[in-house]
Amino acid sequence: MLMGSRQLLGGKNVCQLANIGQSTNIVWHKSSVDKLARQELLQQKGCVIWITGLSGSGKSTLACALSRALYSRSKLSYILDGDNIRHGLNRNLSFKAEDRAENIRRIGEVAKLFADAGIICIASVISPYRKDRDACRAMLPVGDFIEVFMDVPLQICESRDPKGLYKLARAGKIKGFTGIDDPYEPPLNCEVTLQYNKNNCTSSPNDMAETVISYLEQKGFLQA
Amino acid sequence: MLMGSRQLLGGKNVCQLANIGQSTNIVWHKSSVDKLARQELLQQKGCVIWITGLSGSGKSTLACALSRALYSRSKLSYILDGDNIRHGLNRNLSFKAEDRAENIRRIGEVAKLFADAGIICIASVISPYRKDRDACRAMLPVGDFIEVFMDVPLQICESRDPKGLYKLARAGKIKGFTGIDDPYEPPLNCEVTLQYNKNNCTSSPNDMAETVISYLEQKGFLQA
Repeated sequence: MLMGSRQLLGGKNVCQLANIGQSTNIVWHKSSVDKLARQELLQQKGCVIWITGLSGSGKSTLACALSRALYSRSKLSYILDGDNIRHGLNRNLSFKAEDRAENIRRIGEVAKLFADAGIICIASVISPYRKDRDACRAMLPVGDFIEVFMDVPLQICESRDPKGLYKLARAGKIKGFTGIDDPYEPPLNCEVTLQYNKNNCTSSPNDMAETVISYLEQKGFLQA
Repeated sequence: MLMGSRQLLGGKNVCQLANIGQSTNIVWHKSSVDKLARQELLQQKGCVIWITGLSGSGKSTLACALSRALYSRSKLSYILDGDNIRHGLNRNLSFKAEDRAENIRRIGEVAKLFADAGIICIASVISPYRKDRDACRAMLPVGDFIEVFMDVPLQICESRDPKGLYKLARAGKIKGFTGIDDPYEPPLNCEVTLQYNKNNCTSSPNDMAETVISYLEQKGFLQA
């Protein structure tokens, strides 16, 4: 198939010439399956849901609830968790400034690949600096980077302290800890803000997930 | 849901405690959708098809043909192309020895994430050193790394020279080019070998793709 003709399946096609056997006249055109075709198969649109917020703000809890809510709608998602990625792809990065930026950059690049694969990629990373988050946003087509801000006061995160890290940071055993001795820059124009409400006891990870789901539905990401 | 109880969806579950609001008694258990669940949704098994071989041996042509053949069976695949990745995730790597190893390591780590997402990940990378390929194999569960060797003689690859790189290497304008002044170590125990046959004019990328598809079918990767 495709001998001597050009097949275009979409915008991001791979089309190159290759000689077959010892003939130099006959060329094969390579065309891979593209993003649109994958989205058709999955009946959804690939995108990146970038969850940012302080340690203990509930990022990975939301990521898990969101992955379940999407699965119940037969939608394929995948979680890139900042902590987990540091055990694999980013195992050779430290916590010094340039390595932190590289940590975010690599997660952004991988998230971009997942979105291109047609998947709803959920990145759960503190990502304290606006510059780094905006660089990830810029990697993706406009609209496909959905920034979700876990707007939870530091004192609440610190009272939760699920990993005991705030305690260590206060004791000076961790240096440059976000919120304690390193800044967190809240998003200025994020797509979704999930605000902590001390009077609202019914607020739950599933409710927050539904807020994100509503956004996705409204923007057409849950259909091809 | 899931309050005070433990939900396990499979082997690689994320299960942690998180306090809700100001209560420290009530805990939420986070459980994300796992690999098995995603495979059920996709009706396939995640794996890595690692295509290795000289420049010009037909790796990306096979990758494209394979992605089409899988798509025609409603299977989701994604191509990680060594050249493309160098424009994104690996843009900060050079061609010196340690950066080449890091290039392969990162592609292996990303391929692992894709396989965990339930996707048939097709990596198309020269990956000349056995050590680097074996390190990627070791990242994955046994059986999930499928090494495909494009066994094409150097002189054929050089006569094709689709990117004009052999010409530059012979002229000394590229140093350390695989096959010219840097070694290619053929796999010792790869899963599939696709051998160039100078007498067989009917050999085509689609035929080669079908050989790989047969392997996947036989090993049960094309069902959940």
